[in-house]
Amino acid sequence: QSSVTLFGIVDTNFTYIDNANTAGDNKYGLGTSGNATSRLGFRGVEDLGGGLKAGFWLEGEIFGDDGNAAGFNFKRRSTLSLMGGFGEVRLGRDLVPSYTKVSSYDVFGQVGIGQFMGWSTWGQSTSTPDANGYRQDNMLAYYTPNFGGFTAGLGYGFDEKASGHDGRYMGGFAAYDNGPLSVTVALDRRDIGYNVAPLVYDGKKDMLSIGASYDVGMAKISALAQQSRFKDVPASSDRKVNSYMIGAAAPVGAGQVRLQYALYDQKAIDSKAHQLSLGYVHNLSKRTALYGTVAHMKNKDASNLALAAKGLSTTGAGAGESQTGVQLGIRHSF
Amino acid sequence: QSSVTLFGIVDTNFTYIDNANTAGDNKYGLGTSGNATSRLGFRGVEDLGGGLKAGFWLEGEIFGDDGNAAGFNFKRRSTLSLMGGFGEVRLGRDLVPSYTKVSSYDVFGQVGIGQFMGWSTWGQSTSTPDANGYRQDNMLAYYTPNFGGFTAGLGYGFDEKASGHDGRYMGGFAAYDNGPLSVTVALDRRDIGYNVAPLVYDGKKDMLSIGASYDVGMAKISALAQQSRFKDVPASSDRKVNSYMIGAAAPVGAGQVRLQYALYDQKAIDSKAHQLSLGYVHNLSKRTALYGTVAHMKNKDASNLALAAKGLSTTGAGAGESQTGVQLGIRHSF
Amino acid sequence: QSSVTLFGIVDTNFTYIDNANTAGDNKYGLGTSGNATSRLGFRGVEDLGGGLKAGFWLEGEIFGDDGNAAGFNFKRRSTLSLMGGFGEVRLGRDLVPSYTKVSSYDVFGQVGIGQFMGWSTWGQSTSTPDANGYRQDNMLAYYTPNFGGFTAGLGYGFDEKASGHDGRYMGGFAAYDNGPLSVTVALDRRDIGYNVAPLVYDGKKDMLSIGASYDVGMAKISALAQQSRFKDVPASSDRKVNSYMIGAAAPVGAGQVRLQYALYDQKAIDSKAHQLSLGYVHNLSKRTALYGTVAHMKNKDASNLALAAKGLSTTGAGAGESQTGVQLGIRHSF
Repeated sequence: QSSVTLFGIVDTNFTYIDNANTAGDNKYGLGTSGNATSRLGFRGVEDLGGGLKAGFWLEGEIFGDDGNAAGFNFKRRSTLSLMGGFGEVRLGRDLVPSYTKVSSYDVFGQVGIGQFMGWSTWGQSTSTPDANGYRQDNMLAYYTPNFGGFTAGLGYGFDEKASGHDGRYMGGFAAYDNGPLSVTVALDRRDIGYNVAPLVYDGKKDMLSIGASYDVGMAKISALAQQSRFKDVPASSDRKVNSYMIGAAAPVGAGQVRLQYALYDQKAIDSKAHQLSLGYVHNLSKRTALYGTVAHMKNKDASNLALAAKGLSTTGAGAGESQTGVQLGIRHSF
Repeated sequence: QSSVTLFGIVDTNFTYIDNANTAGDNKYGLGTSGNATSRLGFRGVEDLGGGLKAGFWLEGEIFGDDGNAAGFNFKRRSTLSLMGGFGEVRLGRDLVPSYTKVSSYDVFGQVGIGQFMGWSTWGQSTSTPDANGYRQDNMLAYYTPNFGGFTAGLGYGFDEKASGHDGRYMGGFAAYDNGPLSVTVALDRRDIGYNVAPLVYDGKKDMLSIGASYDVGMAKISALAQQSRFKDVPASSDRKVNSYMIGAAAPVGAGQVRLQYALYDQKAIDSKAHQLSLGYVHNLSKRTALYGTVAHMKNKDASNLALAAKGLSTTGAGAGESQTGVQLGIRHSF
Repeated sequence: QSSVTLFGIVDTNFTYIDNANTAGDNKYGLGTSGNATSRLGFRGVEDLGGGLKAGFWLEGEIFGDDGNAAGFNFKRRSTLSLMGGFGEVRLGRDLVPSYTKVSSYDVFGQVGIGQFMGWSTWGQSTSTPDANGYRQDNMLAYYTPNFGGFTAGLGYGFDEKASGHDGRYMGGFAAYDNGPLSVTVALDRRDIGYNVAPLVYDGKKDMLSIGASYDVGMAKISALAQQSRFKDVPASSDRKVNSYMIGAAAPVGAGQVRLQYALYDQKAIDSKAHQLSLGYVHNLSKRTALYGTVAHMKNKDASNLALAAKGLSTTGAGAGESQTGVQLGIRHSF
């Protein structure tokens, strides 16, 4: 039917990680989604007349290394939208408004070993669905139209609990894009209570992210600053993680060079980690690219953060132990 | 390839249910399939010449609220058909013949909180696959052509057991459609034995459904009467549930108003439940509609039936406690 | 999008198997994939210029009898390819090179009750992922271009283990096709270690397969000889299974008659099994066919091999007991 667009990406790579576990073993093999997240989706937009449009979007992740051994679903995005001069109202499961825009300042696009990892769950001892801050079930979101460069979005994810609010999301962002400049502020709160005795608590995770980029012509400079605060969660005191990132992407012929530094200041364990990422993407066409990334995670003190090597199931090295990784891959869109 | 039609529906809503559990808590959030069941499918028909056609149909349910967190499959329909002047022979998993036609008299189309619930499993203490009477694995079905308004269908679902017949289905329907009048009689038997010691029995569930509708021009009046009988099942004596429904749907401008009353007479527990549903569907286009439904389930004595709020995981209120629900949603077809 | 081809097959049949278990019960019902494996897939090729092409292939199995009750995935094939004058480099999950070409000599196409079963796992006491030798996760494969009838392929499937090599695959094939003649030699090794105490070992499974076919005009004669060797696995001594097959396929009007004999010489239990298969495929069109297969598995001594009746979940009969099966089905491609 002409009303449906079938689309997707397959991104598969060779990945090597040293110190892939606390025993210090290396690991290598085929990984997935090093330059863009592999996906398969169906989407469409219908013009209802009078400036009103309806749209649907169903998108699921593809794991090219094991053929989606855990099954295929549409957890990346399953939404219905009504769009018009008023903006867009969106219903369903989706990336949260406080993530979509501000995460775009990550020079590595939130994929692969080079990515900025401030949205990871490692700052948290127990997790609830989607506590990583990327996506949310049962969400009602609103996105404004573009007012001379200003855009904003708000979302509310229903907890659907008979009592308590575990799993609820509230958040939003405001952004300004004008020529070479882009700035975004995003804020959200998640109820991350836990309810399996004897561990019962009613916690919160608050996140503030500020990002900006400036295109100086020969390169685009990007930066992110982020604070995750956990309230009323067990184990030690309330926790806080401050994350910072600065990076640059420069076009070089048919490709792009990427360089990024990130700092993860884990207040609860009074430990820092430094991540340095260097990458090159070579476009074979608009749809297909080869890429290579080298990343180093320097863990200090009690920190044991791991590089994000999807499809290789690595964990953090021992406390204070560092990790280096290499990814060489192909990304193909359709 | 031109031989495949990709089709689907996404229907997502806001649902509120009071007395959503025995504690009397309310529940609200994003639900799915309030006006039509959300789905994604692939189907096609090939003309083999000589009046013979072959067709396939693969269709799975979509959960727009959580992105099919439990995975995507084709359990709505996975069939191969041979069609010709003789009618249609259909192989695979599908809605059973004793459900497809007769369930169409439900003014609320067997979805959402307003739907007639005679096919639900609440009349039964233990369940086997598809014991709700909707669908059947491993089914061989035959549908006649239309003979001057008369149609009929028969199905046999293999149990595929080495011993016993748990899971077997036998059923069919006969219908007459002529101008404003439509009448259907459907009958089926399921082997619902249970084989996990110490609970071992070899039960049956028989279901007789009679439905009719008459289009009086300004509205279409529909009615259903149904008896579910359980034989040789444990706990108390053999059970029986008699369900009745009467409703009307009237076109109003670009929309349709729906009103329906249902009575569930649960003989085994000597208790009745009354359900009253009122709905309005507003078509924004042929493909897209907004809808609103209000429904009330009045449980008497030991009855504790729940409104069908898909995606909100409610249960019945306490015995004799009633439940009221509201659904406001969008349905978009592609 | 024009860059994607949606394709598939639905093949559903009626299957009857006698002695379907050790108790000697019969079993019958709806099965799947008797003449071709039911599947749904998405694939595409992009011309990158300069003789270089990129391609993707995502394909999952369809179970028309139960609607993919266990969920849909892309475990049949999930690959990215770069193709050119040098041949093809393929990344992802796929059939292994030592299986694809040489298995084509099976007259019954590695599906249904008639198929040659040398690649089954019955020769092995404990299994690791994909130990049957068909497919492999995390594989890097290379296929040569066709050099005057000569082709070859090599594959390496990463184990992705921090220690040990359980799950690793290494293998390849070389083939020669010229007019009526086709010959293939294939060899592989799998690391099938097992690591759950107290059963810990570091085994290997080596497989050598030699196949050939000759088209004599009125029929095509095919033969296969295969040896599976297990090394360093527990229970009795190292095991060996020698399998042999000879068959013929002859066009008859719009159809094809197939006849095949296979011998499974299970050295470890010093027992043989003989399999005789007779089938007829009647093409209703290029896309649709009816088929019928009769197969008999004669188990001798301790052998208890079962016919492959997918969708009917049969097991081997008792030791030395034989099994006879019938399949009648439809295969429809799209």
